[in-house]
Amino acid sequence: MAEIIKGSNVAAGMKETLLSELEKLKARHVEPTLGIVRVGSRADDLAYERGILRRFEELGIGTRIFEFPETMNAGDFLGEFSKIDASPDLQGILLFRPLPKHLDEETIRRSIDPSKDVDGMSPLNVAKVFAGDGEGFAPCTSVAVMELLSHTGVDLTGKNVVIIGRSMVIGRPLAMLMMNRNATVTVCHRKTRNTPEICRGADILVAAAGQAQMVTPAFVSPGTIVIDVGINMKDGKLCGDVDYDAVAPLVSMITPALGGVGAVTTSVLAKHLLKAATKGFL
Amino acid sequence: MAEIIKGSNVAAGMKETLLSELEKLKARHVEPTLGIVRVGSRADDLAYERGILRRFEELGIGTRIFEFPETMNAGDFLGEFSKIDASPDLQGILLFRPLPKHLDEETIRRSIDPSKDVDGMSPLNVAKVFAGDGEGFAPCTSVAVMELLSHTGVDLTGKNVVIIGRSMVIGRPLAMLMMNRNATVTVCHRKTRNTPEICRGADILVAAAGQAQMVTPAFVSPGTIVIDVGINMKDGKLCGDVDYDAVAPLVSMITPALGGVGAVTTSVLAKHLLKAATKGFL
Repeated sequence: MAEIIKGSNVAAGMKETLLSELEKLKARHVEPTLGIVRVGSRADDLAYERGILRRFEELGIGTRIFEFPETMNAGDFLGEFSKIDASPDLQGILLFRPLPKHLDEETIRRSIDPSKDVDGMSPLNVAKVFAGDGEGFAPCTSVAVMELLSHTGVDLTGKNVVIIGRSMVIGRPLAMLMMNRNATVTVCHRKTRNTPEICRGADILVAAAGQAQMVTPAFVSPGTIVIDVGINMKDGKLCGDVDYDAVAPLVSMITPALGGVGAVTTSVLAKHLLKAATKGFL
Repeated sequence: MAEIIKGSNVAAGMKETLLSELEKLKARHVEPTLGIVRVGSRADDLAYERGILRRFEELGIGTRIFEFPETMNAGDFLGEFSKIDASPDLQGILLFRPLPKHLDEETIRRSIDPSKDVDGMSPLNVAKVFAGDGEGFAPCTSVAVMELLSHTGVDLTGKNVVIIGRSMVIGRPLAMLMMNRNATVTVCHRKTRNTPEICRGADILVAAAGQAQMVTPAFVSPGTIVIDVGINMKDGKLCGDVDYDAVAPLVSMITPALGGVGAVTTSVLAKHLLKAATKGFL
């Protein structure tokens, strides 16, 4: 049976460093505060928001929520967003995405102050992640995967990493983060011909496809470390991209069906906020 | 024996479209002109410059060369570069890189007008390539590889592509361009454990490692298409990253040891300049 990589353990491991960073900031009279910008009230946004509020309260970090109606027009939203972005009381800004189509997400991504862009959506941060420049911010979920692996103590150098999914928030940035740590990375997606075969050759398999329980025993080998990023609904229940019950007995390490990557993402967000508060990096 | 993918044939195939685009611009009284910025006179920069001048003259596209001494200080260079960048007579700017260390390449990369950045070095263009947004400019050499493959008529969807090398000018952007065309991409580098084995599984193998003749028969299979991006000196002679004589008899298609990708890069540069002249995309 595989060793289980629990997100709560990883988050607990990060807590001490976060509290010590926070203490240093408070000694300098900085009260780090995250601005959370939400348009509408989608269920998954609200679930993530609750997770953030819980984590930040536990750590003693401030948050401010800015909620806007889905009916807001693009010009008004850009104006409001710019005001929030410019506020000297907020060191980091998290915008829930995707935005409603009429709100022109690209203009917002280009407008955000890169030094407050703690979820790595601005072109400057994207370019830094691409270039392997650790000064930038990568999307929190992709960094959470790196934190989970770091917690296991596995050296990524020379490891064959296969990522299923090529999204801008996980697959692509994670491929870069892994490459920058000297892993050999393959990205599979829905047009890949032989996904199970490619995955069987992985030392580390990251499932970020958004397809309920698509990773079956055919995708793994006895030595594989499996990281499940997916959160899906199936038959009225939450589940990951990995068929956990079938796969867990076959591999060397695995994240749980729930309480894996997701439980670490909010800690990464806190880490990014403290980094932003500690120094503007531009 | 493999079919040989000659760069000159690909460039010839691009010429007609380029001339027709150019004609449209001239009808609108636009004389597209490339500004070439060179610091010092490194042999490889001069060779590339000669290639550009030859190609652009053949097409009837203007060039202006701005040469600066290696001893120039960073502030002066930034000032001069900004003036060139702002010139309304230049629709595109090519900066030979790497710059001497004291000249702070990153500041220059951030300062260039993204709409004139025909070799894709600005963060905005890097982010566009990363996101699969075809409006941006990718580095010309990476696009030249795509043009070569397009010329062969091979559909990249679902193909296993292995790229050796993870540089910012070839390996990384090419991985993104390939992924955006639905290929399944693996990037190998010097820390990869089992490069020959991984490469043998490739439908398309791109060698961009900068290591003379490192790709030997152990890296290929009978169906492989081999694209050699390398230009190296070995025993006083130019050679690629592929041991051409040994590999060519074993694969299905291959670029020649010389006259492959390099012969297409200058045509891509012309294509990018005409695109920049046709519309500022910001």
